[in-house]
Amino acid sequence: MRYAVLGTGMVGQGLATKLVSLGHEVTMGSRRAGNEKAVAWASATGEGGAEGSFADAAGSAEVVMNATAGMASLDALALAGAENLAGKVLIDVSNPLDFSQGMPPTLSVCNADSVGEQIQRAYPDARVVKAFNTVNFEVMVNPSIIPGSHTLFMGGDDDDAKITVRNLAVSFGWTAAGVVDLGDITAARAMEMYVVMWLRLFGIAGTPHVNVKVMQATS
Amino acid sequence: MRYAVLGTGMVGQGLATKLVSLGHEVTMGSRRAGNEKAVAWASATGEGGAEGSFADAAGSAEVVMNATAGMASLDALALAGAENLAGKVLIDVSNPLDFSQGMPPTLSVCNADSVGEQIQRAYPDARVVKAFNTVNFEVMVNPSIIPGSHTLFMGGDDDDAKITVRNLAVSFGWTAAGVVDLGDITAARAMEMYVVMWLRLFGIAGTPHVNVKVMQATS
Repeated sequence: MRYAVLGTGMVGQGLATKLVSLGHEVTMGSRRAGNEKAVAWASATGEGGAEGSFADAAGSAEVVMNATAGMASLDALALAGAENLAGKVLIDVSNPLDFSQGMPPTLSVCNADSVGEQIQRAYPDARVVKAFNTVNFEVMVNPSIIPGSHTLFMGGDDDDAKITVRNLAVSFGWTAAGVVDLGDITAARAMEMYVVMWLRLFGIAGTPHVNVKVMQATS
Repeated sequence: MRYAVLGTGMVGQGLATKLVSLGHEVTMGSRRAGNEKAVAWASATGEGGAEGSFADAAGSAEVVMNATAGMASLDALALAGAENLAGKVLIDVSNPLDFSQGMPPTLSVCNADSVGEQIQRAYPDARVVKAFNTVNFEVMVNPSIIPGSHTLFMGGDDDDAKITVRNLAVSFGWTAAGVVDLGDITAARAMEMYVVMWLRLFGIAGTPHVNVKVMQATS
């Protein structure tokens, strides 16, 4: 499969490297082709990895992963271009963390809206799935770092797109049952607001390799 | 121990009944003494249960539990009176759910503030612990409804007050290790925003007897 990974940070690099290791063709997208980190990543990766602008990356891909910072995601996707996103599965991994007011960060959007919903509204022809934003970038692509079964949340309006995401997660090492579908794209509110809890857990656990497992009574 | 439970809804009734069953003296507080639901509860409960105004309840208690609706909590505590809260452990179980815009509810306060923090700021002499708001009222006092170990979150500025809450939770059936101290009272933001995730989990699980377990890598 041909993937675009938008963003050159730790999340983007972790996802892109994992995808190449699984045999996919990956183009890492950034604001301008030739981004130093993207070039270094692509050359270290060998044949499976390429780099380019956000539009280059999205245009070449069947599945687009948004791994840009949440506050910059709408700008990044505008550069990617609606025509390069239409009809595609667009996996939104971003979190709208606002560090401008100091620590702990606040969210630049929350409660009655979310970045996931903003993206779906801005690109109605894209098949947006919010996923992978509730875990650390290493756990994301290697869930066995945390012993035992634990949960990966996702949400989106397109059921087929969510099957794609579930299969991708399973290829990363998640169990199919561990991928919890929270429903439509408004679930992005819950998933983005949950990150405030995750940041507290990170703080007290002393490791970013911390997650939750959903548990329920048998009915 | 003498407890006040402020609020006559399902959460208040569940907590008050459990406390009486454990041998505590409980006064259920409401806006005016003689509240029909509080009178019915107290008479059904027998010797351990009484009812009265918010001020009656808080004044009689060593530990005060706020089980009013989050949007009404500051008003309820104003009626309870600062003099009846000073120095006491004040366990804030509330969630600021706003149903006025339809379903799903939004939060009337979140992100850079929380009800827990508002209460601590309004009553600096109370020892506020945010706790029990992240689970259903039945799970709250009977965690074994959900098989296996799972997590109860708490946060607050007063370490001794958190020991009181942890011991109370253990008396309800939680394991000591299952009670996760998220830190100071700003943790209330994470705990209240998490409820948006909990509401999604409730929706997909088809049972309110759903919770999460924190899991982490061994360092």
